[in-house]
Amino acid sequence: MTKEALYQQILAKQSYLCVGLDSDQEKIPSRFHSETDPVLAFNKFIIDQTADLCVAYKINTAFYESNGVAGWETMAKTLEYIPQNIYTIADAKRGDIGNTVHQYAKAFFKTLEFDSITVAPYMGKDSISPFLEYPNKWVILLALTSNPSSADFQFLNVDTNQTQLFEQVLKTSQEWTTDEHMMYVVGATQADMLQKIRTIVPDHFLLVPGVGAQGGSLQEVSQYGMNKQVGLLVNSSRGIIFSENPKESARKLQQEMAKYLEDYHKN
Amino acid sequence: MTKEALYQQILAKQSYLCVGLDSDQEKIPSRFHSETDPVLAFNKFIIDQTADLCVAYKINTAFYESNGVAGWETMAKTLEYIPQNIYTIADAKRGDIGNTVHQYAKAFFKTLEFDSITVAPYMGKDSISPFLEYPNKWVILLALTSNPSSADFQFLNVDTNQTQLFEQVLKTSQEWTTDEHMMYVVGATQADMLQKIRTIVPDHFLLVPGVGAQGGSLQEVSQYGMNKQVGLLVNSSRGIIFSENPKESARKLQQEMAKYLEDYHKN
Repeated sequence: MTKEALYQQILAKQSYLCVGLDSDQEKIPSRFHSETDPVLAFNKFIIDQTADLCVAYKINTAFYESNGVAGWETMAKTLEYIPQNIYTIADAKRGDIGNTVHQYAKAFFKTLEFDSITVAPYMGKDSISPFLEYPNKWVILLALTSNPSSADFQFLNVDTNQTQLFEQVLKTSQEWTTDEHMMYVVGATQADMLQKIRTIVPDHFLLVPGVGAQGGSLQEVSQYGMNKQVGLLVNSSRGIIFSENPKESARKLQQEMAKYLEDYHKN
Repeated sequence: MTKEALYQQILAKQSYLCVGLDSDQEKIPSRFHSETDPVLAFNKFIIDQTADLCVAYKINTAFYESNGVAGWETMAKTLEYIPQNIYTIADAKRGDIGNTVHQYAKAFFKTLEFDSITVAPYMGKDSISPFLEYPNKWVILLALTSNPSSADFQFLNVDTNQTQLFEQVLKTSQEWTTDEHMMYVVGATQADMLQKIRTIVPDHFLLVPGVGAQGGSLQEVSQYGMNKQVGLLVNSSRGIIFSENPKESARKLQQEMAKYLEDYHKN
């Protein structure tokens, strides 16, 4: 999917919501347990309930791999069920040497036809490049994550002592490709950093996990993170899929987003 | 597998060789193409040829995921075929928030019964901890990788300007668990750094990729990397599995290793 197509979808739906299909088999409602593939049945239900309210689905590969071969099959069938015009993210956090990354690119962009994959930056440019050879496919690079231990390394000062590692990741990786092929993961629980991040990457889309269960504020994220093509995908996983009424939970976020989009266009 | 069991296996086989099953479907010999599962048949052949000469097998998940559901099945069956007393590594380079890592731990330590998994350090301690809850299972943390772009971030000076990021990863992560549950990936093409690394982590096992196709020197790695419980797993993938005679290629490395083990015990 192109950046323009994603932007148009956001305007049409008045939403920059990404629904995370972290479909833990042990947490899905009991009414799905009797299905042949309970997680697939659950995912179809969630997609039916939310497809009009979100612009992206994020499939966290861990929740499928934990069920082995059967789980990988559930993932493939879930991806097939997602409507063509919705942006899809393999939240796989891969990263390896070039030779190996060619295989991951094939796995997630060809065998499975995701629009994008999340990737860890530690191994540098050549661990990303093979993903960028696919037209209209995206790398979503981990910059600042929302977990408590993100500080272990991401906040280390590098070289001049005035740049933190996550900022250096943003600066260096910008040179690898354009904002038509790369987004960044930016943890919402540190929304005060969004302003700083926007000075480094004004034009890129940011994938913001951690709104909801992880405690981030949608208001802050929207205020500090939005740019002229919106530039945000805000993810909610457990807060939607395991809520009593997934449709209403998604709608609530979408309506809040519609308000921020309106505010933004007023200013 | 315990550290002691691994050490005893190394002494018994006079080998610290790890064979990397990077079994690219497009590169396996044509005589396997007519098999129901060509990659599985190839892997069984490689395991039969090398099981007496190596102490570990490393399965690079990318080469299986690229074939989707069928590939994941090949991986599971390959793992089952590996003799129980040989150490197994899921070279998966995972890493995520705690909630998700519990699922990866289940995927690779329970659904699939690997002894260890490679993990990226970028997200810090809580992205590793769930793996450490499994007794006799191991995290193999990326410290210094062997690809050219490893310099993009791993060589950045952090804080005092006298410690590089990969050294800080070694220092910080040492506090997360013991050398009975953690190893480090250290790229062999930078063997001159092994001496430095051994001052930081004298007791840990190091998994050294990049001997052979990636150009590292086994002699240098052994000279600078060995410790009193050997402390090395040296991996060769393409250099063995796609050679004309995998058994002989593995034996050549094993015999060189036997010599270094003898030298080490003399000194």
